[in-house]
Amino acid sequence: MAGEIAIIGAGMTRFGKFPDLSLETLGSEAASQAMHDAGIEPKAVQAAYCANALAPQLLGEFTMGQKIFWELGINKIPVVNLENACTSGSTAFYLACLAIRAGAIDLALVLGVEKMYTAVKKILDAGATDLETKLGFVVPGTFAMRARSYISRYGLAPEDLALVSVKNRRHGFLNPKAQFREIITVEDVLGSPMIADPLTRLSCCPQGDGAAAVVLCRAELARQFTSRPVYVASSLLLSGSYDNPPRLDSWPTDMRAAGKAYEEAGLGPDDLDVIELHDAFTIAELIHYEGLGLCAPGGGGELLKGGHTSLGGRIPVNPSGGLLSRGHPVGATGVAQLVEIVTQLRGEAGPRQVPNARTGMAHCMGGDLQGDTRSVTINILTV
Amino acid sequence: MAGEIAIIGAGMTRFGKFPDLSLETLGSEAASQAMHDAGIEPKAVQAAYCANALAPQLLGEFTMGQKIFWELGINKIPVVNLENACTSGSTAFYLACLAIRAGAIDLALVLGVEKMYTAVKKILDAGATDLETKLGFVVPGTFAMRARSYISRYGLAPEDLALVSVKNRRHGFLNPKAQFREIITVEDVLGSPMIADPLTRLSCCPQGDGAAAVVLCRAELARQFTSRPVYVASSLLLSGSYDNPPRLDSWPTDMRAAGKAYEEAGLGPDDLDVIELHDAFTIAELIHYEGLGLCAPGGGGELLKGGHTSLGGRIPVNPSGGLLSRGHPVGATGVAQLVEIVTQLRGEAGPRQVPNARTGMAHCMGGDLQGDTRSVTINILTV
Repeated sequence: MAGEIAIIGAGMTRFGKFPDLSLETLGSEAASQAMHDAGIEPKAVQAAYCANALAPQLLGEFTMGQKIFWELGINKIPVVNLENACTSGSTAFYLACLAIRAGAIDLALVLGVEKMYTAVKKILDAGATDLETKLGFVVPGTFAMRARSYISRYGLAPEDLALVSVKNRRHGFLNPKAQFREIITVEDVLGSPMIADPLTRLSCCPQGDGAAAVVLCRAELARQFTSRPVYVASSLLLSGSYDNPPRLDSWPTDMRAAGKAYEEAGLGPDDLDVIELHDAFTIAELIHYEGLGLCAPGGGGELLKGGHTSLGGRIPVNPSGGLLSRGHPVGATGVAQLVEIVTQLRGEAGPRQVPNARTGMAHCMGGDLQGDTRSVTINILTV
Repeated sequence: MAGEIAIIGAGMTRFGKFPDLSLETLGSEAASQAMHDAGIEPKAVQAAYCANALAPQLLGEFTMGQKIFWELGINKIPVVNLENACTSGSTAFYLACLAIRAGAIDLALVLGVEKMYTAVKKILDAGATDLETKLGFVVPGTFAMRARSYISRYGLAPEDLALVSVKNRRHGFLNPKAQFREIITVEDVLGSPMIADPLTRLSCCPQGDGAAAVVLCRAELARQFTSRPVYVASSLLLSGSYDNPPRLDSWPTDMRAAGKAYEEAGLGPDDLDVIELHDAFTIAELIHYEGLGLCAPGGGGELLKGGHTSLGGRIPVNPSGGLLSRGHPVGATGVAQLVEIVTQLRGEAGPRQVPNARTGMAHCMGGDLQGDTRSVTINILTV
């Protein structure tokens, strides 16, 4: 699909805790920004996708996309509301790409929006009606097991894992849209309250509210709207599977998805200039490094400690601050990653700009599973 | 898109009240039936869609498609969970058609599943966090206003509306998958408890549980799987808009969607042999008649009373029993309609068979709105 589709507009709210803002307000702001950025009127939108993971559960919401889009004057078009855990936003983008490729539409709006802060305590068992989770096998617990397995297998220490948070907070410090903008140290990370050993509070991404949106169109139309289109070289969605025996310190679906994405884009990991990936917990970033082919299995610690994935390094990862610092309003995250990559590829990222970034990847993982994951999305963008 | 895509398998559970069956059990049964009907193994599925409208709200569910599909051995493919109110199932089908048209996949499984009975009392305000609904402007109330407006404008009586329920129960009596299979009279309908004047309980579709699934593929592959493919002549999704002034006795989006669907299919209302449409309330069926071009505005009463939309009539509507009799487990309905049309076009509908049915329409409407509707889907199928 390389070159068939272009992103022509991007926008997002700041991520954070906004108990007084509604889903509609957050969603409208991001969507309006994206349309303004693309230089289009609402009537130009030919299909609209609203990604959200938790509002029905937490807030009793329903057909939220229609509500938000109508208020913006977007109507009489296909509107789809979808949920795919943490990959909700990126799945919406994938579906919009398919609609353009199918010839059904030329231009689409993709919105991800979430409001979690007012209902935090319901989150931990989200989606987990199974016995394991009712007994306490919640998300931080499964990631703690992954961390234990990874650091023992590869001889790392909790201090090494903590560097992920330190790096991403340093990046987020440079991002005015990030939820957390305070620089922290390894000692801060290790000294914060223990959530699930070895993961402390500062090793886990926060609950939060926010929205992000992009406008995409058929590539040949892109220069009608912008002088800086960003092209979609690959857009991929893949579910995982139960692996037997389960492997806690790698994600087969990451590897499978990355292989397919690189093939579709005609690129490899060495061609990437910048990456946003799914650092829901510190350990996740390390395992994703190898899933995406940035290093051999077990090489994540060296990549991180060598500064190679920091701004200024060989392949900066999560320049936005990632989930750990920019924040993780679940349904919005996948789109926010795209917004960051677009900003980087346009050269508009200011103090966190990756110099001469021409190719970037956005990677999301949604839902945990013994030995694998429920859903992985990868989008590779180029200029 | 006429002829690009074919349905090669269909299956559904009985609709009804199944407090002891889980979403996974219901979903698996329908999906297994559809795959068995198509003669495919789970590994042949290249993308899978799970439509559900209410499980996150009512049951705390999340990434339900992945759960159901994995248990069936369907993994390592794109899986999407989506919600579009009553059009959830048909929106899933629309998305699957787009994925095939885009060239991304050749074969997909679409599942609609819902479990409402165990949580009935939460439903009435579904999706309505707005002030109007908190004050009591719930779904039966808005449809009652539509009914009042329609019957006063066109000189009908509550007895005429009741005939919709009588007809659809007569059809459902012939459908072993229907939730209600008892024949009822106009007196029964009018004598049942008043819900929102003039709509009595037997004028409203029931709460219920159930699942339905179809397997679709690129048309040129269809005969590898079946000797009786059913082709998709049109698949359409459209959101509505606030009309000012609002018109309670017609649905502009119905008309707009039908116009586009007929154009896409190269067919008109006179070409249809059988229709499944969204009779959530008796009044809805009448207004949809004109929305779909079966009669002029206000002609619904005559069409109904003349028996033209009964089995044996000129254009049988809701031979399955419709929402009023087959039932309406929200996320499953859009797919169940497709299952019925496929069954009819294959000539396998037994005692409710429409003779020589060669072209059929499935129509869904999702969510109410002052003067219009949130979402309409239309799928036209042919042999």
